[in-house]
Amino acid sequence: MTSHRLRIAIAGLGRMGKRHALNYLQKTPRAHVVAAFTPDPVEIAWAKENLAPFGVRLYTDYDEMLAAETASLMDEKTAGGLEAVVVATATTVHAEEAIKAIEHGLHVMCEKPLSTSLEISKTVVDAADAHPKQKVLCGFSRRFDASYLDAKARVDSGAIGRPAVFRSQTCDKLDPSGFFVAYAEFSGGIFVDCNIHDIDLALWFFGQDAVPKSVYAIGITAVEPGLARFGDVDNGVGVVEFWGDKIAYFFGSRMMASGQHDMTEIIGTEGKISVNQNPVGHLVDVWESSGIRREIPQDYYGRFELAFVAEANEFTEACLDDKPLKSRLQGAVQALAISVALQESLRSGKKIYYDETGRRLVDDTKPV
Amino acid sequence: MTSHRLRIAIAGLGRMGKRHALNYLQKTPRAHVVAAFTPDPVEIAWAKENLAPFGVRLYTDYDEMLAAETASLMDEKTAGGLEAVVVATATTVHAEEAIKAIEHGLHVMCEKPLSTSLEISKTVVDAADAHPKQKVLCGFSRRFDASYLDAKARVDSGAIGRPAVFRSQTCDKLDPSGFFVAYAEFSGGIFVDCNIHDIDLALWFFGQDAVPKSVYAIGITAVEPGLARFGDVDNGVGVVEFWGDKIAYFFGSRMMASGQHDMTEIIGTEGKISVNQNPVGHLVDVWESSGIRREIPQDYYGRFELAFVAEANEFTEACLDDKPLKSRLQGAVQALAISVALQESLRSGKKIYYDETGRRLVDDTKPV
Amino acid sequence: MTSHRLRIAIAGLGRMGKRHALNYLQKTPRAHVVAAFTPDPVEIAWAKENLAPFGVRLYTDYDEMLAAETASLMDEKTAGGLEAVVVATATTVHAEEAIKAIEHGLHVMCEKPLSTSLEISKTVVDAADAHPKQKVLCGFSRRFDASYLDAKARVDSGAIGRPAVFRSQTCDKLDPSGFFVAYAEFSGGIFVDCNIHDIDLALWFFGQDAVPKSVYAIGITAVEPGLARFGDVDNGVGVVEFWGDKIAYFFGSRMMASGQHDMTEIIGTEGKISVNQNPVGHLVDVWESSGIRREIPQDYYGRFELAFVAEANEFTEACLDDKPLKSRLQGAVQALAISVALQESLRSGKKIYYDETGRRLVDDTKPV
Amino acid sequence: MTSHRLRIAIAGLGRMGKRHALNYLQKTPRAHVVAAFTPDPVEIAWAKENLAPFGVRLYTDYDEMLAAETASLMDEKTAGGLEAVVVATATTVHAEEAIKAIEHGLHVMCEKPLSTSLEISKTVVDAADAHPKQKVLCGFSRRFDASYLDAKARVDSGAIGRPAVFRSQTCDKLDPSGFFVAYAEFSGGIFVDCNIHDIDLALWFFGQDAVPKSVYAIGITAVEPGLARFGDVDNGVGVVEFWGDKIAYFFGSRMMASGQHDMTEIIGTEGKISVNQNPVGHLVDVWESSGIRREIPQDYYGRFELAFVAEANEFTEACLDDKPLKSRLQGAVQALAISVALQESLRSGKKIYYDETGRRLVDDTKPV
Repeated sequence: MTSHRLRIAIAGLGRMGKRHALNYLQKTPRAHVVAAFTPDPVEIAWAKENLAPFGVRLYTDYDEMLAAETASLMDEKTAGGLEAVVVATATTVHAEEAIKAIEHGLHVMCEKPLSTSLEISKTVVDAADAHPKQKVLCGFSRRFDASYLDAKARVDSGAIGRPAVFRSQTCDKLDPSGFFVAYAEFSGGIFVDCNIHDIDLALWFFGQDAVPKSVYAIGITAVEPGLARFGDVDNGVGVVEFWGDKIAYFFGSRMMASGQHDMTEIIGTEGKISVNQNPVGHLVDVWESSGIRREIPQDYYGRFELAFVAEANEFTEACLDDKPLKSRLQGAVQALAISVALQESLRSGKKIYYDETGRRLVDDTKPV
Repeated sequence: MTSHRLRIAIAGLGRMGKRHALNYLQKTPRAHVVAAFTPDPVEIAWAKENLAPFGVRLYTDYDEMLAAETASLMDEKTAGGLEAVVVATATTVHAEEAIKAIEHGLHVMCEKPLSTSLEISKTVVDAADAHPKQKVLCGFSRRFDASYLDAKARVDSGAIGRPAVFRSQTCDKLDPSGFFVAYAEFSGGIFVDCNIHDIDLALWFFGQDAVPKSVYAIGITAVEPGLARFGDVDNGVGVVEFWGDKIAYFFGSRMMASGQHDMTEIIGTEGKISVNQNPVGHLVDVWESSGIRREIPQDYYGRFELAFVAEANEFTEACLDDKPLKSRLQGAVQALAISVALQESLRSGKKIYYDETGRRLVDDTKPV
Repeated sequence: MTSHRLRIAIAGLGRMGKRHALNYLQKTPRAHVVAAFTPDPVEIAWAKENLAPFGVRLYTDYDEMLAAETASLMDEKTAGGLEAVVVATATTVHAEEAIKAIEHGLHVMCEKPLSTSLEISKTVVDAADAHPKQKVLCGFSRRFDASYLDAKARVDSGAIGRPAVFRSQTCDKLDPSGFFVAYAEFSGGIFVDCNIHDIDLALWFFGQDAVPKSVYAIGITAVEPGLARFGDVDNGVGVVEFWGDKIAYFFGSRMMASGQHDMTEIIGTEGKISVNQNPVGHLVDVWESSGIRREIPQDYYGRFELAFVAEANEFTEACLDDKPLKSRLQGAVQALAISVALQESLRSGKKIYYDETGRRLVDDTKPV
Repeated sequence: MTSHRLRIAIAGLGRMGKRHALNYLQKTPRAHVVAAFTPDPVEIAWAKENLAPFGVRLYTDYDEMLAAETASLMDEKTAGGLEAVVVATATTVHAEEAIKAIEHGLHVMCEKPLSTSLEISKTVVDAADAHPKQKVLCGFSRRFDASYLDAKARVDSGAIGRPAVFRSQTCDKLDPSGFFVAYAEFSGGIFVDCNIHDIDLALWFFGQDAVPKSVYAIGITAVEPGLARFGDVDNGVGVVEFWGDKIAYFFGSRMMASGQHDMTEIIGTEGKISVNQNPVGHLVDVWESSGIRREIPQDYYGRFELAFVAEANEFTEACLDDKPLKSRLQGAVQALAISVALQESLRSGKKIYYDETGRRLVDDTKPV
């Protein structure tokens, strides 16, 4: 193990960007946060208080940051230039910023999704393919969660026989502010924003070579009719057939009362594994006159905080020690392709078919 | 409360028939089992040992039983003729036997389904409609289960706001004998045999007037390829849209390793209720070197035994005291209609559409 | 199996007496309730409505009932005299009534405890010993509970190695009426009234020959100071050493907020079994804004209703088929002896010692 | 928040010392590990590989480390001398090393217990009292556990009324190597080694001013008879009365099959809170033919890893920002006093009494 620490910059200091910045700063011993970028004055103010005191240089222009931090003549203090960037800006600029970083010779950890557009996503993969020595990660946080890793190891060891049915959900606590309505304009919709995690997991558990055979989705707006304007719903069910006798079904919701509840079950020919069937906040049960009560995590980060920390550490290690990343960048495009198709099916009400190579067939043509 | 006991006969003494016979004999204080019918010599032998000693008269011909037991001149000992019949024979003769009993002026409790044919089912409803003073029940056992009743009362009281999403599954423990393959020839398929319960529950929780808007299903044969011969699967996922922004999705499986696992969740705009998320056998946890282990019921009857007893008692009470039954016979036809449509969609791979009155539209015509 | 039904009478129609009467009447197919006794006019009125219509003869005098029902010349209708009595009157008359019934040649099922006095309890055992052909059961309901039976079978099969530590509790929901304060005058105290069940279980799991080595208890009055008047507490902890390196500890409480909660764990050298660690009411979880909530049984009968039914059926079977009872009557005296000693230790603050034969030593003399 | 980081040294690099070293090095952003001490060559080798690369200076002599690191003339690189020491050596030298550090003007975080001797423990308190500006923490890790903190906040907010009964256990997975037998010679016994955590929690939840009224314990050697040589047991039950109608009872065991299981319940006049009743490892349930299985943490650190990290961060913050520590050092002595008394009672078989000021009474004299 080298004592050299990975020089990394954070692009974007919104909700997730702040978390990434602090995780890299405080909980990733082998990383050294040297710079951060945000165009937002409020976020810059936050960074001045929380990042600058630890020597993090702040920028309001992404290109300028890349240029300055990768300049050939670095001063003695930093002993070398920038090596990696975390892209945590708005989804609309993920791809562009990721590609720029790649082209500056940097490793990139990009928040999911690469883009809500399949075509744009592929340009990131192309850029990464052109720079094979650099690590480019589109972070699906659940792959770094200890429980999912435990489940994966069990499935790989044959504990449940052959995986055949996959059920997974991502359900958010109802946000009465309705923030997610405005957000829906850019999120790509519930399957792209929420269930892409579940879809990525399905591909992980079924094997990265799983090829979709058909895709179908329905949904409703039970609490936020305004979502319809963006072709989105607040509760959606998606069903995916895979070639080779495998099926997956997904539920996404913005309407949970108790808190966030992601969960997954993988059903094999000889057993089943469930992850987070009974969500756990603190290990506290309250026994009161109305019964026994348990509070659960309120949001995605409350559930997956440690997974994000693990992700930061593993990305850092992969860059420093030139180890393979846990997931291929191409996988992020596959997950997106299915998400986008589910969202399309949700809107059209129609089933979408694929041939055995994964090539989409003309609508309403069932493959023989 | 009258001390008169309902004189009842059991038709069919197979697996469920035996259970009904014993439930009425031993656990239904207000019923008096006077006769039983089965054409099967092995079952007759069982009945000679288990029913005859308690004065139950045995028949190998259904018509003969009806004729003899409803004859106007009953002997003094029984002090009156037959009043009700439990039809628990093979599904293929349910309808015929139920109609005959109705036409003999008897109350009828018929095992589900009335038939695997929608048309035949309707003939039972017609017969019942023509004899409005007689009680005719197609027993969906879960409606008599204390947990489902508790859930229903909560939903009706507004505990979860407006119900919007319904998920329900009926999953059997894998039977390595493959019995269910041969059985598939007559069962109507997994949605008709298993998920009809879940569909009935969806109609119950969404309100008996819920009208389907579309139906779609997929499935696989993961452990029993032989099912394909009958257009059936061992794992199926069905999705139903209802008019009025409601969706339901169902999972049926023959492949559970641990035991039987039915479960349901009803998600409303202000909360969620789950029934049997964590199945309970005995209240025993075994803490051993491999972790903490809990055994669960092995079959449907192990889970719902008390519900069947409650059903027998409630049917008896309804007949004796002329109380309304818990569910309309018409509802059994509605549940069957959706089950049959899911099974059709499973086979065709196509979505099926309905208009707002529930009338099926020509395939592939999405209602506007 | 004979079709003859056991002719049984119920003595006492208070809270438990009513339940026994209905269990024998409605849920014990092989029993025939022929008579019931209560001196209480309100209870007689209840019996006229609920028992008499089914042919149960009512008495307000216990001796008269025994005399009339066991008279040599029984009328044709009942075809024989009384065979068994359930004693469910006030604890103060349990022993006397049980002995009278035994001396009338009857089988007896007596509610626990036989008496709060050790000496009086022994007189019942003496009477039973003098009539060895009659079944005399002091009913500890938990021995008939399916979960405890499952646990016992596991322990007997060696699933946890050698049982060494036993923890058990009986905790009632707080009754704000304070009924249990007045009741404490006759109940014998919390260890005799509540924890006698747990103590009986300890003897069952450790083996009926387990001999106590020492007994010690403490307690407090947290909600009902009035209990102190009767030398009782509303929360008590008792600790029992047994010869042969075994220990048991008990908790009794009248102060639970959520409902009744009995539970037991048996810890062996190779594993642990817990019974009812997580109490289950209906299989319903309510997911609401304050978290996930589960309601639990509110009282002892809500938890053990099926055990009482099983007890009635097993007692009936033992009488009819001359099968051994599940527990020796002497065991009820052993459990009482330990209960009474715990209650004494609670009052005196002193530890009580026994030699290896179970003979009590002079206080404060520790056996060598 | 200052960007100055607390210069800290680790004394002892055994099992816990290694963990503390890595926690301060990697997961405590405001701390800077400058030195470590261990007399053990194997541990030094580990430190050369794991600590030295990050600039940690290594010592094999404690006094030398204190002298060198606190010398007035520090080199430019470290920009100041040592400020704090973590004492994680063998219990026998905790007190001596803690006192030396205090006298060198350093903050001290000392592993529990300060000593197995009550008198020696008090000398640490005296030293700390003489240096009131320095922080001296005897770390009871559970006070930093998020679940216990949540429980404490609830109790403090009145959620369960007045706390009256406290049950808590610390149970280790059986170590078949029997390591704990040899360890028992120095551990002080099961109540001092394990249950001191539970006792500290009782004092925390009942209020630091809770005064014991009596103490009593029993125990057995079920799996390790060799423990008897040291007056110790492998399963012990302790019961403590407090003045003011409060009781606590404790269970310690070395014999768990499934893994480590600490748990606590606090029962108040209006509700109960349980912590870790159902231990959680990963959020994975395995559904297999033998039932549903969940694995649990295997050891204390597996359960409390995050609590140790929180402890390191809070101690660091308290030192840097001169904030009060979460627990008074005197409390560690109180917990030890009760632990030692339980261990004495276990050995003597006698109850130990205290007056209302907490002064121990002559044995066998019950306070009036």
